[in-house]
Amino acid sequence: MIETVAFAQDLIRCPSVTPKDEGVFDLLQTTLEGMGFTCHRLPFQEDGTERVENLYARFGTQAPNFCFAGHLDVVPVGDEKGWTFAPFGAEIHNGRLYGRGAADMKGAVAAFVEAAQNFIQEQGDNFKGSISFLITGDEEGPAINGTKKVLEWMEEQGEVMDHCLVGEPTNPQCMGEMMKVGRRGSINSVLTVHGTQGHVAYPHRADNPLPRLVKMLEALIADPLDNGNEFFDPSSLSLTTIDCGNEVENVIPGEVTAKFNIRYNNIHTGASLEKWIRETLDKVDTNYSLKTRISGESFMSDQDILTDLIEKATQKVTGVQPERSTSGGTSDARFITHSCTVAEFGLVGQTMHKVDENVLVEDLQSLTKIYQTILTDYFNEAI
Amino acid sequence: MIETVAFAQDLIRCPSVTPKDEGVFDLLQTTLEGMGFTCHRLPFQEDGTERVENLYARFGTQAPNFCFAGHLDVVPVGDEKGWTFAPFGAEIHNGRLYGRGAADMKGAVAAFVEAAQNFIQEQGDNFKGSISFLITGDEEGPAINGTKKVLEWMEEQGEVMDHCLVGEPTNPQCMGEMMKVGRRGSINSVLTVHGTQGHVAYPHRADNPLPRLVKMLEALIADPLDNGNEFFDPSSLSLTTIDCGNEVENVIPGEVTAKFNIRYNNIHTGASLEKWIRETLDKVDTNYSLKTRISGESFMSDQDILTDLIEKATQKVTGVQPERSTSGGTSDARFITHSCTVAEFGLVGQTMHKVDENVLVEDLQSLTKIYQTILTDYFNEAI
Ligand SMILES: [Zn+2]
Ligand SMILES: [Zn+2]
Repeated sequence: MIETVAFAQDLIRCPSVTPKDEGVFDLLQTTLEGMGFTCHRLPFQEDGTERVENLYARFGTQAPNFCFAGHLDVVPVGDEKGWTFAPFGAEIHNGRLYGRGAADMKGAVAAFVEAAQNFIQEQGDNFKGSISFLITGDEEGPAINGTKKVLEWMEEQGEVMDHCLVGEPTNPQCMGEMMKVGRRGSINSVLTVHGTQGHVAYPHRADNPLPRLVKMLEALIADPLDNGNEFFDPSSLSLTTIDCGNEVENVIPGEVTAKFNIRYNNIHTGASLEKWIRETLDKVDTNYSLKTRISGESFMSDQDILTDLIEKATQKVTGVQPERSTSGGTSDARFITHSCTVAEFGLVGQTMHKVDENVLVEDLQSLTKIYQTILTDYFNEAI
Repeated sequence: MIETVAFAQDLIRCPSVTPKDEGVFDLLQTTLEGMGFTCHRLPFQEDGTERVENLYARFGTQAPNFCFAGHLDVVPVGDEKGWTFAPFGAEIHNGRLYGRGAADMKGAVAAFVEAAQNFIQEQGDNFKGSISFLITGDEEGPAINGTKKVLEWMEEQGEVMDHCLVGEPTNPQCMGEMMKVGRRGSINSVLTVHGTQGHVAYPHRADNPLPRLVKMLEALIADPLDNGNEFFDPSSLSLTTIDCGNEVENVIPGEVTAKFNIRYNNIHTGASLEKWIRETLDKVDTNYSLKTRISGESFMSDQDILTDLIEKATQKVTGVQPERSTSGGTSDARFITHSCTVAEFGLVGQTMHKVDENVLVEDLQSLTKIYQTILTDYFNEAI
């Protein structure tokens, strides 16, 4: 019998810093097979990248297929001396489970495993439908050999999900506060403004790229991109660096590079923003190079049975009504949204990616109950 | 008997790259002593700097004292393989004397030595007045142990100059085109804008210094500083670098530094500009640090006997009327202007600081005649 807290400890004790696996996938696979899941290990490796483990596991063969998606890789420990308890020790102190991945997101994976086990036992032979796990080891890394490739494999196999719950930590401070029903998109730009080097005593003989850069950036930040909408905050453009590297104080440089990131809501697309950036820059000057990279388009989940059941289960277990939010960074939900309705609900993310990452043991137990309630209600209502 | 070209060759053959002397001061001192000059060798060395040679030499004890100022140090050779002739070989080819310092400014020192020798011989015992040399070995370097300290020593000694001619290369292309009757000032500023680091997904939790920097720089470059005047070009502000060094594309940086240089005419002072910079920045935001360094105030020579005689002698020898200019970089004239009227006239500067630095042998002979004419006319008119 799987119990969330003990299983979370076992998962945390595998130091699976991306792209390392360290036995964590074998552990989950064995556990799910013990529960009757059919498991597909899907290691992927693109040229020039590291091999990454993935697992797709399914219980049942009928529709609807309720999928839980998540990751077993964790971010590096960082300053190990800053940790009060061993980062892979999974020690419990004062009602808190400490360890890298406790919040993001081995704790949630363990909670869904116990929830599925309890639900399956409860249902016995009456169960119609399917429960599946889509688990990657490349969420914290470049996300090239992870969820995206598993979804491609699923499409080839004719594997259909009807709804997908991503177990990322969604609650800012307290259990039950927030689910994520979409995410903003993210586009990174590298702007290089070209000019001609020269001496400050003869500025007319040089072509200083810096004043042009200043005017270009001024044009980009002059007005807000939008005012947001019901589900989304306003899009935001953040200048992240400007670098020229000219160490000679009487020399006008020949080139300067600025970088900026736009987190955008569903009013824009990556393509519409790139067009806007180029048009805005061109009004100042055209002697520049621009590279853009869209790391995730914005998306908004359908507000349907999945989001309603998350809300209902959360209210029942915690007494709190979760906000339907689209804030925060990107997650693999950006890939899954192309396959089915996706929403996110997990633990409290306050300590994720930090030293002394931890979760309340009580929250792990609440989350197990929430997940189990969602499963029960989903199959009651959906079948 | 000293002859300009041969003496310039002897001077060039001493590889006196700042702060090295390599016998060049002994050579000049011996020569001037042979002509009856009283010589004062004035080596200076401040803590943390290199020892530098200087020479003050005077012929005669009566007023007026006409001083020739210059330097015997040279800039480094640079890419030695790029030179057609040995940089310290002082070879003559096709009517040109090649070597580091030929134009800037050993050629002019040699020309004034021959001019003084010829003038002194011509005058014989009738000469009333004084001719002096103020020669430093620290003009191309930090200029800490050079002309400035010699002027302090002169003041202590009660040594008075009535007029001073600086022999820097002033002619852009052809002999006689241009004298310098002032120089623009130069002020360097380092602006650091402070903020609070954060994640681009949560820009409201960070305080991005980059947009504020953009607005500050935009304010600084928005309007011209002035429109110039009869003798001066408009002042110019050149941004020289912006550096943030943030390599993480999803992180908002905590600090950014920009540097800029202002070349300013006599409408401003370093202090008035610093005040203007601070007032302009303060209108945008006050969370910044600013360091300024004035490397030379702007100055304008009196248009008197000295500038008139330079014009007259140049026209007589070359047939060209020299423009009275204040363009170009700084020189030691910025120090001398506090002691007496100063103006600058020397060789053609086209190849200075470059590979294959050279001057026309003919120009060395013209410059000798111009200097000798100036001396003759000066003492005729001034006494
Ligand atoms: Zn995560
Ligand atoms: Zn010089």
